[in-house]
Amino acid sequence: MNKGLLIVISGPSGAGKGTICKALLEKHPEIKLSVSCTTRSPRQNEVEGINYYFITKEKFKEMIENDEFLEYAEVYDNYYGTPKANVERILNEGNDIILEIDIQGALKVKEKYPEGVFVFIMPPSMEELKNRIKKRGSETEESLIKRFKAAFQEINYVANYNYVIVNDVVEEAVKRLEAIIVAEKCRVDRLKGNYIFLQEGFLND
Amino acid sequence: MNKGLLIVISGPSGAGKGTICKALLEKHPEIKLSVSCTTRSPRQNEVEGINYYFITKEKFKEMIENDEFLEYAEVYDNYYGTPKANVERILNEGNDIILEIDIQGALKVKEKYPEGVFVFIMPPSMEELKNRIKKRGSETEESLIKRFKAAFQEINYVANYNYVIVNDVVEEAVKRLEAIIVAEKCRVDRLKGNYIFLQEGFLND
Repeated sequence: MNKGLLIVISGPSGAGKGTICKALLEKHPEIKLSVSCTTRSPRQNEVEGINYYFITKEKFKEMIENDEFLEYAEVYDNYYGTPKANVERILNEGNDIILEIDIQGALKVKEKYPEGVFVFIMPPSMEELKNRIKKRGSETEESLIKRFKAAFQEINYVANYNYVIVNDVVEEAVKRLEAIIVAEKCRVDRLKGNYIFLQEGFLND
Repeated sequence: MNKGLLIVISGPSGAGKGTICKALLEKHPEIKLSVSCTTRSPRQNEVEGINYYFITKEKFKEMIENDEFLEYAEVYDNYYGTPKANVERILNEGNDIILEIDIQGALKVKEKYPEGVFVFIMPPSMEELKNRIKKRGSETEESLIKRFKAAFQEINYVANYNYVIVNDVVEEAVKRLEAIIVAEKCRVDRLKGNYIFLQEGFLND
């Protein structure tokens, strides 16, 4: 059996990666979503094992020491990380798994799992990105400019990815993501083992 | 504007590449089909510029000398070749072009145009390939075995391709080919230039 694909969806904040992942998973319930570990407290409505695995700092540090994360980061005194075991189990069962993750996280995953499919979600234009960041809420002009500049800097990292999807119309973006998944499964470098097998079948025929 | 994709559809005889190309072109009239040059005489119903460009041996040899073919071959005292100028014009206009071609031809095209998308059409099984070759007509058992062995040998070349499509159900095979074309247009290495451009837009904003 083929291993599943590790699909990493990433991009600057405001590009719409969350919306695209949600739409993809609704269309394809067979694709799994990676659930992160965090040391922060659950918010209202957050469910253990669905939104996050909520664990203690001691446990998190132990997992770091045992190299049990594909990637992790410390944000405002809390840890967030992608547990390796879960991802590997799903891939070994032949299922695809999505990681929705920021750019720094994606680059770390790439080091550990270069055979992943790295997809960069790009805002359609600077203007549109500005609008989206604005819409998110009550930010000051200063923090808006700061976030905006950060998003601009982040776009440089697109060169580290395999694919870029411009998120102009969500439905179209999701269709392109679906096509990438289908195409990746046809890539010869993923299938070589199978065709050695097929050839053996040919020889014995 | 982006250049179009050169899509090379190839594979062993009996794998069904002709059927897949035909079905793709019917669904996507915007994709062009490369028309070959040949020195053989037109058969009944064959139309100049649709089935082939029918040219003289002198003209063909002149074109070889001027490096005007992406690939060519001599088969039973006649020449067949893919004229470069036509392919380049279509690609430069931003349109995709399909080359349906044998494996030796595809390998030659890859030398000259490595940025092409090389797709290997694979018969679903040895048994099925046998049936398909049989169905083609009145071959002796000996020539059947010969063709069959040749097809088996050709499968080794799959490693030189980017993608492999197992032609089990034609409609499914065509869908996979469509997905490959969509995905290739999202590949970062094809789009890098555009995002430098986008970033300049971001800077000036």
